[in-house]
Amino acid sequence: MGQSGQRNDQAGTARGIYLGLREQIATGVYAPGDRLPSTRALAEELGVSRTTVTSAFDQLISEGYVLVRQGAKAVVAGNVASGETGPSLKTGTSPPPLSSYAMRAMQMPITMPAAGGLKYDFRYGDVAPDDFPMLAWRKAVSAAIFARRERLGYGHPAGSTALRQALQGYLWRARGIRCEMEQIVVVNGSQQALDLCARVLVDPGGKVLIEEPCYAMARSVLAALGAEVTAISCDADGLDTARLPAPHGYSLAIVTPSHQFPLGSVLSAARRRELVEWADAGNSLIVEDDYDGEYRYDVRPIPPLYLSGRGRVIYVGTVSKTLSPTLRLGYLVLPEGLVEPFVRCKQIADRHSATFEQDALASLIDTGAYERHVRKMRRMNAERRAAFLDSMAAAFGERIEVVGTSAGLHVVVWFNGSAAEDEERLAGVAREAGIGIYPISRLFSLAMGRRAGFVFGYASMPVRNIPEGVRLLAKVWPQQV
Amino acid sequence: MGQSGQRNDQAGTARGIYLGLREQIATGVYAPGDRLPSTRALAEELGVSRTTVTSAFDQLISEGYVLVRQGAKAVVAGNVASGETGPSLKTGTSPPPLSSYAMRAMQMPITMPAAGGLKYDFRYGDVAPDDFPMLAWRKAVSAAIFARRERLGYGHPAGSTALRQALQGYLWRARGIRCEMEQIVVVNGSQQALDLCARVLVDPGGKVLIEEPCYAMARSVLAALGAEVTAISCDADGLDTARLPAPHGYSLAIVTPSHQFPLGSVLSAARRRELVEWADAGNSLIVEDDYDGEYRYDVRPIPPLYLSGRGRVIYVGTVSKTLSPTLRLGYLVLPEGLVEPFVRCKQIADRHSATFEQDALASLIDTGAYERHVRKMRRMNAERRAAFLDSMAAAFGERIEVVGTSAGLHVVVWFNGSAAEDEERLAGVAREAGIGIYPISRLFSLAMGRRAGFVFGYASMPVRNIPEGVRLLAKVWPQQV
Repeated sequence: MGQSGQRNDQAGTARGIYLGLREQIATGVYAPGDRLPSTRALAEELGVSRTTVTSAFDQLISEGYVLVRQGAKAVVAGNVASGETGPSLKTGTSPPPLSSYAMRAMQMPITMPAAGGLKYDFRYGDVAPDDFPMLAWRKAVSAAIFARRERLGYGHPAGSTALRQALQGYLWRARGIRCEMEQIVVVNGSQQALDLCARVLVDPGGKVLIEEPCYAMARSVLAALGAEVTAISCDADGLDTARLPAPHGYSLAIVTPSHQFPLGSVLSAARRRELVEWADAGNSLIVEDDYDGEYRYDVRPIPPLYLSGRGRVIYVGTVSKTLSPTLRLGYLVLPEGLVEPFVRCKQIADRHSATFEQDALASLIDTGAYERHVRKMRRMNAERRAAFLDSMAAAFGERIEVVGTSAGLHVVVWFNGSAAEDEERLAGVAREAGIGIYPISRLFSLAMGRRAGFVFGYASMPVRNIPEGVRLLAKVWPQQV
Repeated sequence: MGQSGQRNDQAGTARGIYLGLREQIATGVYAPGDRLPSTRALAEELGVSRTTVTSAFDQLISEGYVLVRQGAKAVVAGNVASGETGPSLKTGTSPPPLSSYAMRAMQMPITMPAAGGLKYDFRYGDVAPDDFPMLAWRKAVSAAIFARRERLGYGHPAGSTALRQALQGYLWRARGIRCEMEQIVVVNGSQQALDLCARVLVDPGGKVLIEEPCYAMARSVLAALGAEVTAISCDADGLDTARLPAPHGYSLAIVTPSHQFPLGSVLSAARRRELVEWADAGNSLIVEDDYDGEYRYDVRPIPPLYLSGRGRVIYVGTVSKTLSPTLRLGYLVLPEGLVEPFVRCKQIADRHSATFEQDALASLIDTGAYERHVRKMRRMNAERRAAFLDSMAAAFGERIEVVGTSAGLHVVVWFNGSAAEDEERLAGVAREAGIGIYPISRLFSLAMGRRAGFVFGYASMPVRNIPEGVRLLAKVWPQQV
């Protein structure tokens, strides 16, 4: 048997240890002032006697690489490491070019996490830490970590069988969706779902229909890809299908039929039919982003478009609004013929979603804990919504118009007396008073309304803070703009 | 204050509850035989009196939608739901076209997780479940779940500050890499790191240099993107820089300098210099996939190419080999000017990596538990490696050649008496005996060697199983091929 390749024949000898440590010091693995491992620890690690290590240390000490102060561990002496900080390009070198994708991505707005420091933050998308079912999640994650597994290896790119089975039942109970487990692909939140839809179905230059206004990061996915985006305006019945373009040549339409984001309207039955017919005529697909389908505060459920989609609808669900966006867990329900390309592209993107979290979510769903939690969240957010609407009505009266059906975790508020171009300035006024409010114009591709509008999220605040925040906002709000 | 959009004025009335439930039954949200929520639970959820709910139930019972058996909860009657299974495309409709990306992805081999059922599986990439530090990880995850947070919202696309700080220190201690925290971007394992490198730096048709043989999923990333890939063969000193093409026009080179995958050689100092000069001349970047940099079994450390890379090297690290590939955690160290495009593209891809796991890893690193675990794993895998090499030598003697330096979690074994074209057949023979072995040809883009070769991973097996598996393999191995 031969063994080629570099091999250190001195490994395990004092000389080998000395050479190794000296190189680690020279290359900066150990910096001046760093403690070396104890001779005992190193001996144990290398499987040699402590005497061997001690003699290597002695050599390093005698050569000035290492200092030993009375009773303390050996530390690296100063001025021996290369002392360089990280390498950088030669000055005068032009940086390597970015891809067209990255150059387009650089033009898009970047969405940064909450900066913190605000007393009342009406930021949409965050969840109150106290709402998170910490005990149940810890228990489920612990069970997943301690589960007896044959191997701890890469998982299936479509997601774990346990989670896909659990989701199959959940989708049926909660959203009336009947599908095979094989149609479900687990992803890292709806963002990855949208990104995969674009990857699998849209070429650079391909045509995609989106809503106006819409979720900004959906537009970023398409813009970075170089898709040609057509934005169709939305009203109180959702996407205005009267404005649909000629159907041919579109790869995708990305819509929020159950609760338009951000306007909050529900796509009417007639328009649902028209949208599906449009997709049928053009042989294109519809992505249904059901980002907050769990939150309806009256009894009437809004059926997902998937049910009437004639096999043209890709359904996207998430636990970001029910558990937390920090978990990065979502799922796609795919028409049968699309499963394999999505699975392959998911694997290329990041192999699969994290296994322990998938298994934890599966067990929460299987035990009923997830749906109990969703019901609890629905009650709590209904209360928050009511508190918000009541206090806004009391504070602003006829000066505002609130739009949206009784659903979700946000509303849009139009301020009758303020102009759209003042939104950022007004957000600044609020911010100075410790209140976070978010201009709706950021979600339009064109400047649209004449009035100033803001998206108010209420899910991240304790309910008692909501009226306080609203009263303070009214107090600092300019009387005349 | 006005509120437009659909609003159910009957919400909270018996009639509203009746209509809502009837629709849920008709659309299949509740299937025949499903239990309805109890009147008490529903009353609590809707914030109405139990009498209101009971009268809605009575109406449903009287109309035959719901059955109540003595003392049991109300269940949905048969034959009332729409009864449809999932929608599917009209027959005769051609499916919507896939993107060029997806069509190329469909041509690539798909890597499936271990099928299980093998007694001795030498699959590379998996980790033994008993090696995973379950207690420490559970403790760290629990602490992350229970941490006091101001908000539970989207995180920073580059990763949590805690983890990036911890990684900064770790990279310095373990790999001698000095970088700013801002240069580090946390991703879902090295697969996402490679995918982002391609996205940010390579256009369809762009030229990329890879090693031959190489990690199959790196080739998939590039092939799906439509990059023009040049594969450079590797020998006992790593990538053969004498075969480098003219430098201009290449966006990237993706290499494994510390431990070539799969051949196990180390890129020599002279070749490192040549590769960096090549990149300098062409103004291209080098991606250093340091997938198993933690595993060296002799003292001499192999410095990362990053250190001598003149700012042209993107360093990719992962915890897949030290903790588990199921966690999906890895990181990039980027040249300064590339941070923003990577952060933006990471956000478009999936917003950010899961927060609890990032925080858990940060705390393992900060407390020293991670490095203690790495040292323990290094000892255990050195033992596995020795057991494998010794038993292979004993069982096969001169009939094999083992290549690769004393590092990592796998070796390549060439079988002198067997031909490359017999690899799949030999793998089949082994599989029938309950042994998983994996042909190296799958990692070449062209048929290369004349001898049959296999990549043997040993990290997922208890050490005592290794000699058993090898002896069984020798027993079933054909004497003459």
